[in-house]
Amino acid sequence: MPRIWSETIAAHRDAVREAAIDATASLVARHGPTGVTMSQVAKESGIGRATLYKYFPDLASILAAWHERHITAHLDRLAEVAEATAPPDRLAAVLDAYAHLSRAHATPDPAALVLHQAPHATRAAARLHDFLTALLTEAAARGEVRADIPPTDLAAFCLHALPAGATLPPPTSVTLTLAALRPGP
Amino acid sequence: MPRIWSETIAAHRDAVREAAIDATASLVARHGPTGVTMSQVAKESGIGRATLYKYFPDLASILAAWHERHITAHLDRLAEVAEATAPPDRLAAVLDAYAHLSRAHATPDPAALVLHQAPHATRAAARLHDFLTALLTEAAARGEVRADIPPTDLAAFCLHALPAGATLPPPTSVTLTLAALRPGP
Repeated sequence: MPRIWSETIAAHRDAVREAAIDATASLVARHGPTGVTMSQVAKESGIGRATLYKYFPDLASILAAWHERHITAHLDRLAEVAEATAPPDRLAAVLDAYAHLSRAHATPDPAALVLHQAPHATRAAARLHDFLTALLTEAAARGEVRADIPPTDLAAFCLHALPAGATLPPPTSVTLTLAALRPGP
Repeated sequence: MPRIWSETIAAHRDAVREAAIDATASLVARHGPTGVTMSQVAKESGIGRATLYKYFPDLASILAAWHERHITAHLDRLAEVAEATAPPDRLAAVLDAYAHLSRAHATPDPAALVLHQAPHATRAAARLHDFLTALLTEAAARGEVRADIPPTDLAAFCLHALPAGATLPPPTSVTLTLAALRPGP
């Protein structure tokens, strides 16, 4: 198969996947996490039902793909920020970016993910955790971060502490998280 | 009405409420957050349907009462711990108790609360937040806790940072949270 043709097919497949995910996101927003069926997704996206089932066996797999896409976008943004800032400012810049991203609105409905038991939703979360672990390992090696707790535990802490509810301003949760990570006196 | 009689009525009402909540908790555990109806709660608890509706207008209100009972039990335990330990150990003891409690198993299903939009579920959470704010205000006045961030924000941070997922051991999340709260050098 000529490369230009296989690239066209790949682009088409991506477009179908994206359309199915967008339709599902929009349906969940309108009808809630329990009110969405594969038939509605087909209708809303303009994809034939038979075609839709070739891409996604069920609603759970579309929700998982949505979640994956969402986390991947976060990771891309965090990687950009990490590349654009040199140590010792890198860690603070990435944590600040994550605190803001984790509060943005267009997130996959957690109730929908739980309900439909989206099986791969945790895989994307693991990649985010790995990214932060690498960042913290690097910072610990430079003495910017405490060495008495493994970087993987520090990363888990950051992922929970930084979003810190809608009520806490991001600069505050970043200040407190950085204080938690700082090496002891 | 003689006092003994009104006390009997109050105890009876509490028993009916408790039975309805227990039945709902057990049904949600078995059938998931969407598979439960008021009729099932009536049948499972042995309370007549008409009587059940006198206590709770809908499933959301039972879930809210369940959540309220759960948080109240937490608050009772935290208040006990606070009373049993004197400063400067009080704060660490209470945060440690909360880190353990927030990881216990028999919690109201968050998906159920979200789905049924249990209206008063946040009231109980606000009481927990108020309790921690008072504790942190007291600790800040003694110089045990940083004064540059309002105690209400510190409390919000603790509530998110301490549970920190099932993967992080409670002593680690308590150590990190206390480091975040410590006054600056």
